[in-house]
Amino acid sequence: MELKYRSADFEDLESLVALLSNDPLGNKREDASVPLNRAYIEAFEAIVRDSNNDLVVVEQDNVLVGMLQITFIPYLTHIGSWRCLIEGVRIHSDYRGQGFGEQMFTHAIEQAKSRGCKIVQLTSDKQRPDAIRFYERLGFKATHEGFKLAL
Amino acid sequence: MELKYRSADFEDLESLVALLSNDPLGNKREDASVPLNRAYIEAFEAIVRDSNNDLVVVEQDNVLVGMLQITFIPYLTHIGSWRCLIEGVRIHSDYRGQGFGEQMFTHAIEQAKSRGCKIVQLTSDKQRPDAIRFYERLGFKATHEGFKLAL
Repeated sequence: MELKYRSADFEDLESLVALLSNDPLGNKREDASVPLNRAYIEAFEAIVRDSNNDLVVVEQDNVLVGMLQITFIPYLTHIGSWRCLIEGVRIHSDYRGQGFGEQMFTHAIEQAKSRGCKIVQLTSDKQRPDAIRFYERLGFKATHEGFKLAL
Repeated sequence: MELKYRSADFEDLESLVALLSNDPLGNKREDASVPLNRAYIEAFEAIVRDSNNDLVVVEQDNVLVGMLQITFIPYLTHIGSWRCLIEGVRIHSDYRGQGFGEQMFTHAIEQAKSRGCKIVQLTSDKQRPDAIRFYERLGFKATHEGFKLAL
């Protein structure tokens, strides 16, 4: 069954927050309560308003199986190259181990090429060794340290 | 002498490209020729058009001493948090070792707070050990691998 990709609608938001919360790291830092925490709604509206951000819903047979967020960023570096930043990649626990992640990245990389990006980049938590192996298998190189500072 | 920060103007562009090129990694991948490669001009225009990107020029006594690019990104993750991504941080070789980098990051972190960001993030090339120590000293944690895929 082929995967379908579309930009998220407001009606997807509860399912997306549930998907983010259903994760060993996400369940410590997300708020799975319904009605949704207002902050999710405001963030969703900001993402939709920004033409350089795309919150992508992945469906199989009309069932939401995954999500990812793509941000397109123009930089002077690398002779004025656009980059594609991928974050918030999640696959529903019922649908793992079927190669969906690889298909989702194939889609994201196609989007990056269609927008003229020269680099796709992402950071992966060092506590997620499976994810790190997955990205290496796709050809990503861990040439950089991924630094975070909580405010 | 206090540093001053402002968004880059088109008139800064030649100096900014020269600064990017005057660097052990940059001199392999930038195009320092003048008149400027058209790609720099197009990238600059795209940055200026995007209200979630700020290409910051750093000056001391009206002399350009550094630059950095700040991108503000809305995410659903972390209960709908905005993040601040910092890239393209450069200090002119004549002005290093004077604590300018720390002042520039203090400025960038203030900008991030004023935009409601919960996380500041950046990636640093593993070939730049001094930069890595600098970010650690500022309190950044290298919790993530920074993956890149060239298209």
